Amino acid sequence: MSTALLTDQYELTMLQAALADGTGERRSVFELFGRRLPEGRRYGVVAGVGRALDALEEFRFGFPEIEFLRREGVVDAATLEWLASYRFSGDILGYPEGETYFAQSPILTVEGTFAEAVLLETLLLSIYNHDSAIASAASRMTWAAGERPCIEMGSRRTHEEAAVAAARAAYVAGFERTSNLAARRRYGVPSGGTSAHSFTLLHDTETDAFRSQVTSLGVGTTLLVDTYDVAEAVRAGVEVAGPDLGAVRIDSGDLAGLAVEVRRQLDSLGATGTRIIVTSDLDEWAIAGLSAAPVDGYGVGTRLVTGSGRPTCGFVYKLVARENADGELIGVAKKSQDKASVGGRKFALRRLSPDGRAEAEVVGIGEPVANDGDDRDLLVPLVTGGKVVGREPLAAARERHARSRAELPREAAALQPGDQVIPTLWEGR
Amino acid sequence: MSTALLTDQYELTMLQAALADGTGERRSVFELFGRRLPEGRRYGVVAGVGRALDALEEFRFGFPEIEFLRREGVVDAATLEWLASYRFSGDILGYPEGETYFAQSPILTVEGTFAEAVLLETLLLSIYNHDSAIASAASRMTWAAGERPCIEMGSRRTHEEAAVAAARAAYVAGFERTSNLAARRRYGVPSGGTSAHSFTLLHDTETDAFRSQVTSLGVGTTLLVDTYDVAEAVRAGVEVAGPDLGAVRIDSGDLAGLAVEVRRQLDSLGATGTRIIVTSDLDEWAIAGLSAAPVDGYGVGTRLVTGSGRPTCGFVYKLVARENADGELIGVAKKSQDKASVGGRKFALRRLSPDGRAEAEVVGIGEPVANDGDDRDLLVPLVTGGKVVGREPLAAARERHARSRAELPREAAALQPGDQVIPTLWEGR
Repeated sequence: MSTALLTDQYELTMLQAALADGTGERRSVFELFGRRLPEGRRYGVVAGVGRALDALEEFRFGFPEIEFLRREGVVDAATLEWLASYRFSGDILGYPEGETYFAQSPILTVEGTFAEAVLLETLLLSIYNHDSAIASAASRMTWAAGERPCIEMGSRRTHEEAAVAAARAAYVAGFERTSNLAARRRYGVPSGGTSAHSFTLLHDTETDAFRSQVTSLGVGTTLLVDTYDVAEAVRAGVEVAGPDLGAVRIDSGDLAGLAVEVRRQLDSLGATGTRIIVTSDLDEWAIAGLSAAPVDGYGVGTRLVTGSGRPTCGFVYKLVARENADGELIGVAKKSQDKASVGGRKFALRRLSPDGRAEAEVVGIGEPVANDGDDRDLLVPLVTGGKVVGREPLAAARERHARSRAELPREAAALQPGDQVIPTLWEGR
Repeated sequence: MSTALLTDQYELTMLQAALADGTGERRSVFELFGRRLPEGRRYGVVAGVGRALDALEEFRFGFPEIEFLRREGVVDAATLEWLASYRFSGDILGYPEGETYFAQSPILTVEGTFAEAVLLETLLLSIYNHDSAIASAASRMTWAAGERPCIEMGSRRTHEEAAVAAARAAYVAGFERTSNLAARRRYGVPSGGTSAHSFTLLHDTETDAFRSQVTSLGVGTTLLVDTYDVAEAVRAGVEVAGPDLGAVRIDSGDLAGLAVEVRRQLDSLGATGTRIIVTSDLDEWAIAGLSAAPVDGYGVGTRLVTGSGRPTCGFVYKLVARENADGELIGVAKKSQDKASVGGRKFALRRLSPDGRAEAEVVGIGEPVANDGDDRDLLVPLVTGGKVVGREPLAAARERHARSRAELPREAAALQPGDQVIPTLWEGR
């Protein structure tokens, strides 16, 4: 399915004017970055890279798209003709998926003609702004959860397609699995699911419901125990499934207190291996608050898919350099109050101490400063000459995130609002 | 494209167990509602109805979906067979699109067998939770803007498909147009667009850029005047386009102060009909704060597509009644702490005073209380016997919203946090 109309109309009207006056062919460099981290956040997580590469390959104006634009008179005939043969033929460098980022990190650098690069603005921003917001929230949650698994179950609280992307982004940032079936199908994110309160209510008794579930899904299943009375449900659950019952889920009430009671009850019934999963509007603070409770896993919904209060990253896509009339590439920048940009193509390095600890995000114009060997180049080729070269398995992004996060100073895990945990330094030769 | 996997795995595992024990065929009633309005909100706006009906018609397990489920072992063979012929055959009543809603409003009532109705939970919630959150934020903005138009331009700050739905929902709630081309194509939402800072930076001078834009798009276009110096840009713009220049857009700085200066400058240049459009992280409060400034339109992005701090409505989908072993439909309810539900199928009326002012949301079990003739039945047929009967033009939803909002007490327009503006009353015979 074409992604070409998932964009703002002004990309096409700018294209029309630039094609007409000849500037559309000027070689240009756009950068995608955030002026600052979302308020209070100490680091951010890049996600959506793989989705952006998929979307780029589908960014084609086929017959239906061209006919729509023609019928509605959005742009003129010359522009339509240009669009009909549009293929991005330029180069894209970017932070690889799962990498951490900071203020001014040049997360993507798109180079091509103005015409071909300007068209990608909205779609790239949509994907990066959404997916990175979810991954950034998810990373705080998995960090707070420590060794305990986090399960993504927020599909119902966000747009149905955003839900799929959210499940993917959460996985990159360390979630163990998702409830979303489309995320499993499209991206191979592990999925799971057992039952809701409606299943208990459907049956004449809670015991009937538990028996049905255990018969169908096995004793390793997770029984939801808070439809009526938790203690009675735990008793019935172990009676039905035996002491090898996989898990019980608590979805309401004082989770910490209930977990203690349920743990004691399970142990007394011999179900010492039965895990306790808690759900109910959890976020990173609630997860941290439950760290001392006998909980074995966290199901997270609403607060994950809405970015835990930071539903977007505020990334922008700015022209930083373009060819002049003499064919030279020159830096350009706007001077708008509070929104000034810095002209010129950026490089970016993660400065690491000899023992592998992140010390700074080093950003500059032109060629990188001397790399003393410990630093990591942050920009990798994603698209070369229009061809996608940066695709990788989702597991690679997940592993990269774990490594990159582990390099950060320990204060990065703090949940109270704060400044970014390493400085962004402007350097350059 | 099938929407059947845009769901949580537990719908399918519950289905498997319920088909196996026979309870899947029990006649059931599910309701979609919010326990309360999002914090501080005085009313909510129902949106997504048309999208939900579209998605329901595409909720089919075709060969690719069945093969995926089989390959991954998500459910057993009997369940796959049942899914392969799945068609929702029940009835859905609901609040029509654009209607206002309150705590406990039964926004959707889905009746069918448990098996066929439980499958729709996640997809319906995703659509309603997202679209209604956007429409609820949008309605506050258009109310604050009064007669001045609001333009939706937030696509880049949310998931690329959520962006399309957001443009649609904003239109329902009174936005005049969108920047999103897919929203125009799919839903006929009026769209517009002119240029970005990159277009000015692409050119050797700002005047070159303006001349190119005016040549291409006509003097009625909107010139972006804050790339370098606003006063200089306004001067250049009128010089290039003449006094019939359509509009100028200011995207940074002290918008109120700049608008006054720009208005004065435009008038002094004879461009008395040139409009001033402001953009830059606007929300309902910023719009209200600009009401005394000489501004002619508001472009709203991030804060709209993220629901202005309330990115989801918190709607849930609960089983409220089901057949018992004797074939009678009985009310069912869970008792979970803080999350108890009320059993039984609900009715809902908007109680209106003789002069058409909304006084209460009347919700009850069973047959409606006597309707004195002024009240409005809020539930209308959307799906009957599996057939969609509630489809309507988007303009109808937009008009309905304007009418429904106009009935609310004037305090509904207040922007400070407050309680819902009319009470939800439980009544019933």
